[in-house]
Amino acid sequence: MGIRVAVVGASGYAGGELLRLLAGHPEFELVAATAHSQAGAHVAAVHPQLSGLDLTLSATSPAALADADLVFLALPHGQSAALAGQLPAGVKVVDLGADFRLQDGELWRRYYGGEHAGTWTYGLPELPGQRELIASADRVANTGCYAATVTLALAPLIAGGLADPADVVVVAASGTSGAGRNAKAHLLGSEVMGDLSPYKVGAHQHVPEIKQATGATSLSMTPVLAPMPRGILATVTARFAKQGDPRAVLVEAYANEAFVHVLPEGQWPHTAATSGSNSCHLQATVDADSGRIVVVSALDNLGKGAAGQAVQCANLMSGLPETTGLSVFGVAP
Amino acid sequence: MGIRVAVVGASGYAGGELLRLLAGHPEFELVAATAHSQAGAHVAAVHPQLSGLDLTLSATSPAALADADLVFLALPHGQSAALAGQLPAGVKVVDLGADFRLQDGELWRRYYGGEHAGTWTYGLPELPGQRELIASADRVANTGCYAATVTLALAPLIAGGLADPADVVVVAASGTSGAGRNAKAHLLGSEVMGDLSPYKVGAHQHVPEIKQATGATSLSMTPVLAPMPRGILATVTARFAKQGDPRAVLVEAYANEAFVHVLPEGQWPHTAATSGSNSCHLQATVDADSGRIVVVSALDNLGKGAAGQAVQCANLMSGLPETTGLSVFGVAP
Amino acid sequence: MGIRVAVVGASGYAGGELLRLLAGHPEFELVAATAHSQAGAHVAAVHPQLSGLDLTLSATSPAALADADLVFLALPHGQSAALAGQLPAGVKVVDLGADFRLQDGELWRRYYGGEHAGTWTYGLPELPGQRELIASADRVANTGCYAATVTLALAPLIAGGLADPADVVVVAASGTSGAGRNAKAHLLGSEVMGDLSPYKVGAHQHVPEIKQATGATSLSMTPVLAPMPRGILATVTARFAKQGDPRAVLVEAYANEAFVHVLPEGQWPHTAATSGSNSCHLQATVDADSGRIVVVSALDNLGKGAAGQAVQCANLMSGLPETTGLSVFGVAP
Amino acid sequence: MGIRVAVVGASGYAGGELLRLLAGHPEFELVAATAHSQAGAHVAAVHPQLSGLDLTLSATSPAALADADLVFLALPHGQSAALAGQLPAGVKVVDLGADFRLQDGELWRRYYGGEHAGTWTYGLPELPGQRELIASADRVANTGCYAATVTLALAPLIAGGLADPADVVVVAASGTSGAGRNAKAHLLGSEVMGDLSPYKVGAHQHVPEIKQATGATSLSMTPVLAPMPRGILATVTARFAKQGDPRAVLVEAYANEAFVHVLPEGQWPHTAATSGSNSCHLQATVDADSGRIVVVSALDNLGKGAAGQAVQCANLMSGLPETTGLSVFGVAP
Repeated sequence: MGIRVAVVGASGYAGGELLRLLAGHPEFELVAATAHSQAGAHVAAVHPQLSGLDLTLSATSPAALADADLVFLALPHGQSAALAGQLPAGVKVVDLGADFRLQDGELWRRYYGGEHAGTWTYGLPELPGQRELIASADRVANTGCYAATVTLALAPLIAGGLADPADVVVVAASGTSGAGRNAKAHLLGSEVMGDLSPYKVGAHQHVPEIKQATGATSLSMTPVLAPMPRGILATVTARFAKQGDPRAVLVEAYANEAFVHVLPEGQWPHTAATSGSNSCHLQATVDADSGRIVVVSALDNLGKGAAGQAVQCANLMSGLPETTGLSVFGVAP
Repeated sequence: MGIRVAVVGASGYAGGELLRLLAGHPEFELVAATAHSQAGAHVAAVHPQLSGLDLTLSATSPAALADADLVFLALPHGQSAALAGQLPAGVKVVDLGADFRLQDGELWRRYYGGEHAGTWTYGLPELPGQRELIASADRVANTGCYAATVTLALAPLIAGGLADPADVVVVAASGTSGAGRNAKAHLLGSEVMGDLSPYKVGAHQHVPEIKQATGATSLSMTPVLAPMPRGILATVTARFAKQGDPRAVLVEAYANEAFVHVLPEGQWPHTAATSGSNSCHLQATVDADSGRIVVVSALDNLGKGAAGQAVQCANLMSGLPETTGLSVFGVAP
Repeated sequence: MGIRVAVVGASGYAGGELLRLLAGHPEFELVAATAHSQAGAHVAAVHPQLSGLDLTLSATSPAALADADLVFLALPHGQSAALAGQLPAGVKVVDLGADFRLQDGELWRRYYGGEHAGTWTYGLPELPGQRELIASADRVANTGCYAATVTLALAPLIAGGLADPADVVVVAASGTSGAGRNAKAHLLGSEVMGDLSPYKVGAHQHVPEIKQATGATSLSMTPVLAPMPRGILATVTARFAKQGDPRAVLVEAYANEAFVHVLPEGQWPHTAATSGSNSCHLQATVDADSGRIVVVSALDNLGKGAAGQAVQCANLMSGLPETTGLSVFGVAP
Repeated sequence: MGIRVAVVGASGYAGGELLRLLAGHPEFELVAATAHSQAGAHVAAVHPQLSGLDLTLSATSPAALADADLVFLALPHGQSAALAGQLPAGVKVVDLGADFRLQDGELWRRYYGGEHAGTWTYGLPELPGQRELIASADRVANTGCYAATVTLALAPLIAGGLADPADVVVVAASGTSGAGRNAKAHLLGSEVMGDLSPYKVGAHQHVPEIKQATGATSLSMTPVLAPMPRGILATVTARFAKQGDPRAVLVEAYANEAFVHVLPEGQWPHTAATSGSNSCHLQATVDADSGRIVVVSALDNLGKGAAGQAVQCANLMSGLPETTGLSVFGVAP
């Protein structure tokens, strides 16, 4: 018999992607999917791509989750702690929200507002030593989507001493699903198609998360909304702390990773190649004019940036092979 | 040990989708993928979404296919016959091209030009009796993408006597991958984004295929190129031959089908919900003003419209459960 | 000194396009632009494309319009009548809403609900005799966007006796701005990009308007939402009532029109070519298989489908050359 | 009578936009438009958005340009010099290509290859003193599209001493028309829709042009292809050389400019707002975490980035008001 899992906040985009992945997962058995305003709806009325899945969304409550061995929380920031506190200790939890990512409560309050709920094991298995911590944890805080994209590009270069942690500049563009399923005027198709628009310039809440995960001490990050449903492309540049070959460092760091691919020289990552997958594509070079390290990182914000990452962590927490139910390959074109 | 399969014409969009599906197929073992100008290239240089797949494209030749039990042909129209004729009789073949779809050689010459190569079993398992024919066939002609979309909507209504076969009007819009991976100016992103453009109005080569598969005798079809990579949405209207409930006819026709879903009343198919899947979504109504039957059909032109359909046929031909290695669920948003 | 004009409902997409056209109009002087929830905002905060225009939106009231010789109403359906009734008789009004388009009050109530406010001169100058009526009218009801697209394609063919008015089938796809600037979940960029979705199948409110304007007696219309901000492409098919050359009929009907272009034979209209312009592109053929007339019509739903059409009518009402301040040429790619 | 102008290379995207602008220009009379493989075609067969313009493309030759007072060259890089050398000295020329932009021949050879043809007056009127140079020049080298976007953001900050010219990092994303009308596979709609892809990382040919125009001495630039037809969004960051308010510097620099708008505080530029216009939108801030200057710049690569800029220069060279025939306002949504 499978491991029984539940999804809380199943009506959003990350929730929908989780349901899709779980429907194809050979070891996880979905026993509940809950929502707030959509409780009572058939899943295919909320997520038409899941037509054929026999599932009705229920209202979120601890009772609705009573049968689950492992619970995925896909709630808006600030709402995970209350529910998590009501779950029995033996129930494993992966939180796709930000509530438990940061170690520094003061930073949490500054970027998110409200009280800091605490700190859970950070859910990025490819960080050194992190896979083991996740495998033995009952509570895991899944990465932010920009944070995953940038951290995979940057962490080995700072750890290896090549990149100056005090001089990192990031411009990262995301598809619109990263902004969630919120009916806001600036996210309308009419506004976003044919358009690139920056937002939260120098003020994005993933900055402290990236710094914590990579050791960067000074990070300029400009997020950009891009006219596509999925995908993040991050350009990460840093000054050299000591000379070296940044691509070689990445190749070594990820030599044994199933989901992080340093592309052959001359081939650059692009988002469509990772769409629908749990893969992150990387490439690095040294800028000819400035001498800066330039790394480009691409992934699917709903895949390796959210739901895929969460399933990868859940696999580890459940003693399953890490790749179970996840695709290395993207859906393109 | 698995069934050994090969893909000929692996560098195009349908070829790439075939490789993606085969990479995740539990029973098929990919033993060769061939191409013409891209022979010798690593698959991920041609299809970056397949990064992580250890495969080099070889040149197309019968020798390159010697190890295969089953061969998928994804070649331009008119090129399948020559190669198919060189394959041993025991080798199963699914042709994604048009060469063997039509029974009437005169129609083939009119719409495609050149000599008619012959007629193979038509690869649409959901047509009455067709599943059994495919299961026992060694050679199967996969459906055209528009043909699959329209036939699934129309065939039961004509077979059931509701739709007048002499009065069918179709407008069908397709994502650009349906036009293939051809570097033509009118297919450039700059031209297609923000644009809808009709083409081959009243002259599309899938018209005779749809008529043959559905029994329609008069069919007006206007194809439209739409600004998206994948997906076909067909609006099929017909005059009533006898009154009845068109939705009920479709519900009954597809009650036991895994991949053809008649949506709940009030919910209309849209292409994104089928993206990356092998599903076709249908809905039908009676037009309030004209009294015509209106059916809308949506599928992924590279999935149920090409590579997914081909794998479904290959499963049948190989004695496997029809759904093996195929997804019912779309990747959305 | 110019003719003083005002825009009511200036915060929506049609309102924004009106402001853009009026900003470049050599004879109209914009004296007021009003809005509801956005009253008090600078125009560029609401319409960033109008950065550089010195204008603040005011609250909608008769007093705010006291200086205007001509008022454009771009309000939601059902809201024009109340305001129009408060404007002095000498003030000219062009209503971009549906309130005064239909002659049949019963149809108005069925498709829009609420009380029918009355009937104004229909604002499609290219209909025979209509230009003169508009030029002498004080109150003009601008066309609906689908209605303009379909009527320009169909009216001459019914008037000329070629098309059977009892057998018309239309499938028309529109960019998302046609759905207005409403923050609804199904209009989010994440939902519409990569997607085609039908809506109001057989039940769209422009059906009675098209029938009234063209003389069609039976009309099946399927509207489709397309992944682009602007543009409508309508495929209009009809059975022949008597044989003839549909393209020749269109060529003759529009020989002297600045904004309606029957394209050279073999060239089909596409929406991008009309983007930002007041032009409508047409092409016609006879379907080879069914013998039906097929006309394809393309225009910009915010241009000839809304704001451009309204300025064209206002030019006529003001004794100006009809093309003043309007572009024949589209912005593409 | 107007000033007689001609367009060489009229079949490309920049050429088409030039023709659109010239068709609406009140002082320029288009006397010839030439092309290579498209010579002899009606303009609307090549640029369907120009339906209604009575113009046939002629073959490129000095004789075809004999009637022109001013010639726009929109040729591939390396082809302008040969033709320009054959034009009489009294004929004014604006070159939209790169041939005459750089002062340093060695840099030209490194980035473009082949012989350096020389250096013309640089066509960016908003640079201090440059407007006067352009007005008195007979030969002007129009800016590159990325170069215009970045230079407008960066030049005043280096000139004012705020930005460290040795520490500039740029990530700039462009719509696909920036890559020209070349039928290449990686520019197909199927490839670019839903995709962000970097290219020429650290090696783009506009780097030396930007350095020359701004005084930057070290510039890391990562160009990205974005899924939209038009528009460039550049994020430009630099270390402070001395403290100050970067936004105030930009406000002062562009206080009297018609086409360069520093947006109100809190409002960030986005590309759609500049589409079809000759405007550039700017905003600046100080990054909260890194303390770097961050400027975002948006324009239409075919407008202020190419054809609009060229017309602005031609206006100056012809003694016309700089804004003649150009729009400040974008076409959006």
